Amino acid sequence: MKFATLALVLAAAIPTMAQTANTFQPASTNVWGAEYPRIDASGRAEFRIKAPDASKVQINFWGNPKLDMTKGADGEWTLTTKPLVPGFHYYTVIVDGFEASDPGSHTFFGGGKDASGIEIPEPGSTYYLPTHVRHGAVRELWYFSKVTGTWRHAMIYFPPGYAANTRTRYPVLYLQHGAGEDETGWIKQGHANFIMDNLLAAGKTKPFLIVMAYGYARRAGYVEPVLTGRPFGSPEAMKAMQEMFSAFEDDLTQVLIPYVDTHFRTLSDRDHRAMAGLSMGGMQTFDITFHHLDMFSYIGGFSGAAGIIGGGKFDPKTAYNGAMADPVAFARRVHLLWIGVGTDEPRMMYTGLENLHHELEAAHVLHVFYESPGTSHEWQTWRRDLNDFAPRLFR
Amino acid sequence: MKFATLALVLAAAIPTMAQTANTFQPASTNVWGAEYPRIDASGRAEFRIKAPDASKVQINFWGNPKLDMTKGADGEWTLTTKPLVPGFHYYTVIVDGFEASDPGSHTFFGGGKDASGIEIPEPGSTYYLPTHVRHGAVRELWYFSKVTGTWRHAMIYFPPGYAANTRTRYPVLYLQHGAGEDETGWIKQGHANFIMDNLLAAGKTKPFLIVMAYGYARRAGYVEPVLTGRPFGSPEAMKAMQEMFSAFEDDLTQVLIPYVDTHFRTLSDRDHRAMAGLSMGGMQTFDITFHHLDMFSYIGGFSGAAGIIGGGKFDPKTAYNGAMADPVAFARRVHLLWIGVGTDEPRMMYTGLENLHHELEAAHVLHVFYESPGTSHEWQTWRRDLNDFAPRLFR
Repeated sequence: MKFATLALVLAAAIPTMAQTANTFQPASTNVWGAEYPRIDASGRAEFRIKAPDASKVQINFWGNPKLDMTKGADGEWTLTTKPLVPGFHYYTVIVDGFEASDPGSHTFFGGGKDASGIEIPEPGSTYYLPTHVRHGAVRELWYFSKVTGTWRHAMIYFPPGYAANTRTRYPVLYLQHGAGEDETGWIKQGHANFIMDNLLAAGKTKPFLIVMAYGYARRAGYVEPVLTGRPFGSPEAMKAMQEMFSAFEDDLTQVLIPYVDTHFRTLSDRDHRAMAGLSMGGMQTFDITFHHLDMFSYIGGFSGAAGIIGGGKFDPKTAYNGAMADPVAFARRVHLLWIGVGTDEPRMMYTGLENLHHELEAAHVLHVFYESPGTSHEWQTWRRDLNDFAPRLFR
Repeated sequence: MKFATLALVLAAAIPTMAQTANTFQPASTNVWGAEYPRIDASGRAEFRIKAPDASKVQINFWGNPKLDMTKGADGEWTLTTKPLVPGFHYYTVIVDGFEASDPGSHTFFGGGKDASGIEIPEPGSTYYLPTHVRHGAVRELWYFSKVTGTWRHAMIYFPPGYAANTRTRYPVLYLQHGAGEDETGWIKQGHANFIMDNLLAAGKTKPFLIVMAYGYARRAGYVEPVLTGRPFGSPEAMKAMQEMFSAFEDDLTQVLIPYVDTHFRTLSDRDHRAMAGLSMGGMQTFDITFHHLDMFSYIGGFSGAAGIIGGGKFDPKTAYNGAMADPVAFARRVHLLWIGVGTDEPRMMYTGLENLHHELEAAHVLHVFYESPGTSHEWQTWRRDLNDFAPRLFR
């Protein structure tokens, strides 16, 4: 075998080597060897995109104005941002109207696609990073769902010691991603495993399993309606969405939970089962747990909660068939009702959850309301949410 | 919380709904709701890319001529391919010189980036698909490497029954990805877990663990040389690559293997440890196992094997300090030497491995030479390789 074969095999692997020392360093979310995007100590990010024949290239941090890049003499487009809020930010690159991920970044499932993401370190925060403590296990799970008629993929976190303590049974938290994300988000973007590892090592939380399900489902034999020309929010689109939510609810409660309780050493009574979710996952959590209070006793909504579907004012007296109408009985039954929001979230989201908090307060419904300072509808908010929520479970 | 909040949260999640019945169906590798790319029964693929302001858009199946797309009146670019070889194919989209992944496809790490991939079904083949058999567990592993001074990520497959059979110890196969790929490839692209599940259910293989490591490493404190202007294959670039290989060898043999043997119920003698890899991983396998024959007794090279690094002719009499010089002693010591190649691989690769096979044969070195009919340097070849290789282990 000749030298050229080596070139054939290896050409793709040689990383771009560091050019010069610089205060900017490659982001931790980059692929091996990618120099860009890179970040400085103030949180500014530099992007570099190869698009020699393009006439317009932009960086799109979702929910923000698109940022125009500048073409250099070498045909590469560059941009340096202002300091970014610490945490994980999705972004895409738009080249002559084509929106795609940045080849320099790993991808993270969000916005319904494998999108780019950039991690801006938060000075002094290690609670969501791998540290020298005992690590739990993250595993993938494939299960066949009689509801959807398909194989479905989920992720599970096992606390350190699960494998060794063969006589111990554990509570379970079902933890859901947001709209456009999937079951991989809480590990890849959220670092839920490292948050738990660090909380456990510090003695701040009880050990429990975390199951992260794929939050979309279509019933076996379901034919998608043709929604062409139907705007978002039209009765047809709403019905399709509610059907998806209903199929997911059945898959979770009739297939996945029994599967988990059969295959792993869980405590399977309602006192040892929690559910939480972010954004759409928070709405799903409220709908599912309140429909199945015989199955759940801890409820968390991270930037998404009750009273959203259907719109209008949320009334604790009548919501969910009056489950909260008697606050004392409710507090005895539901051990934790937890709602969180970032102070910099879009106004509607922030005020919506703040109103929910006030309505619950006015109705004397015991709950926790947590505000993440300076963060928006993004993973840094949800990491903090989990870090506050987890220690309150299964006490 | 008002209806608009729902729109805010959910807008990204509503899948594109099926438009019309068609013989083309969305690829299994697509993201939720993406209609394109789609495939017909003959294996033709239709692509559709939104790039309204672009002047040139191409689909790039790596190693093949780029395919020009055609712009439609709606600003979307389309292309229908000829029938494609069954299996998994990486591809990218090139828009005015910007090469990126297709937002309709999930990404798979290859070519040093998160690239698109399309799965063309192989009629009648289910050996690499989830079926109604017992499934093993795939888990992620984070370990701290004293060699690199960093946290490293690996994947492990546990056969069905591992958790329940708490007194059973298992052999281990270390299975490596190719150049430009990473530790996720054997599960995401290769479906190694499903291949094992199906082999085990059919009683065709012994149960064992599979550890999939990240095949790149930089020693702690190592400063990358500046390789600007140094062509691939230059002494400087070769030295940098060999340093990377050497660091990986130390990480694997000094850190990961002891970690696995400490944390899991393994049989840790050389008779119960195998290594195999594809392409670059095959070369790494030959180098590492022959340097550590005290640790390994089963060796597999999938489209990549001995005698590549350094070029020139491979001489079984002198290679690896004469480990094969006495073929009888070698066959007693190494229980399996396995080499595979696809018949449609690039000529250099095919003839290189065929020559290796002939040289081993001429020197009476016992080995298996497997040819995958009609497949190239691609995952369908390597799935077949594993399906043939695994049943020969630990007999």
